[in-house]
Amino acid sequence: MPKVYHFALDPFCRRLRLMLGEFGMEAELIEVRPWEAPPEFLRISPFGDVPVFMDDNGTVVSGIVAAGEYLEETRGTPERTLYGTTAAEKAETRMLLSWFEGRFFHEVTGPIYMEKALRRLLPREKGGGAPDTRRVRAAMERKKDHLTRLGQLADERKWLAGDFLSAADLAAAAQISVLDYLDALDWNGLESAKLWYQRMKSRPAFRPLLSDRVRGIAPPSLYTALDF
Amino acid sequence: MPKVYHFALDPFCRRLRLMLGEFGMEAELIEVRPWEAPPEFLRISPFGDVPVFMDDNGTVVSGIVAAGEYLEETRGTPERTLYGTTAAEKAETRMLLSWFEGRFFHEVTGPIYMEKALRRLLPREKGGGAPDTRRVRAAMERKKDHLTRLGQLADERKWLAGDFLSAADLAAAAQISVLDYLDALDWNGLESAKLWYQRMKSRPAFRPLLSDRVRGIAPPSLYTALDF
Repeated sequence: MPKVYHFALDPFCRRLRLMLGEFGMEAELIEVRPWEAPPEFLRISPFGDVPVFMDDNGTVVSGIVAAGEYLEETRGTPERTLYGTTAAEKAETRMLLSWFEGRFFHEVTGPIYMEKALRRLLPREKGGGAPDTRRVRAAMERKKDHLTRLGQLADERKWLAGDFLSAADLAAAAQISVLDYLDALDWNGLESAKLWYQRMKSRPAFRPLLSDRVRGIAPPSLYTALDF
Repeated sequence: MPKVYHFALDPFCRRLRLMLGEFGMEAELIEVRPWEAPPEFLRISPFGDVPVFMDDNGTVVSGIVAAGEYLEETRGTPERTLYGTTAAEKAETRMLLSWFEGRFFHEVTGPIYMEKALRRLLPREKGGGAPDTRRVRAAMERKKDHLTRLGQLADERKWLAGDFLSAADLAAAAQISVLDYLDALDWNGLESAKLWYQRMKSRPAFRPLLSDRVRGIAPPSLYTALDF
């Protein structure tokens, strides 16, 4: 059985786990705290990146960009693709991935995840300590514009990248689910994005994420609700 | 003829142009200063990302991850691939791309490009002004470890990703060429990385980059030298 090294609250690990779910794959999940840099983990992921996917044939792929493409390439079929079948569809999926896992992560999820979660988990010499609430507020502010754009896309199309559920939907939902866990969501005025997220959250692939808990950080009561 | 919107000193645009060169493709290059956010440019790249590749059939792909994959998909062949032919080769290429265009860019090229180039080009309200020399020094310091690792890979393998010249070689060379232009390289103690970069710099695809000039920022005299 393939192995996946992950950290439960990491948004990139969450996207990979959603892909496993959508492909109906079983994998052994091995939780790692990348900042602890366990030597056996650094041997397979020299920079300490998560997620890491270890295939049955011994192929080891670290980092979400390479691991996501690898899963699509080895488990996707024309009938069940998460990237698309034409070059234009794949380009659209990858542009949206860069949006959510690049810009959205750097402007919104990354700062909120750092300040509201990692500051409590990391040892002081690696950045642990009190959260920078100004940074959280700035990220919350930038969030609205992104979720408004997401809602517009969800209104115009069946799924974010077009007519099929793609890795872009999974990546966006994975990022948002981290905000959800950290009680950093407010759907006020974002009805279209909210409807799309309700659809995502109801998928069977989402269930394992909703039951994950990180010690010392409790999600809000609506975190597991499908009708929120 | 396809069109490419680019900025001459941007390391991601440079990687795309190297791909064009290696594929022997002609394209019309349109220089844009993304921070000026020209409305006609934002229509094709809503977040202002460069590079943008506009194909003859009208497909528009923005951002280096999607545009690089698109070129490989539409112009690559099993005989002339820049990502590899097996899933494992492609995974290796993409992991290296994430290293150079993710970590290396964020830790090294990004800060140096910002402080030594963009501060002089941007209007004050967008971050123009005096460079933060401490930030440059920290990036220069982090550079050594990356280039040592790169040199080790170049010693072990024919090219960075294995037996074939890949997009990872182009991405790494593109990032390093920006440091080169900004006089932020010192090959002292980095003989293996230097030999690899000499090989890269000698490729015909590199010539257009070496003749580019950005107004107000002159490269050092060795920038165009193939034997440096």
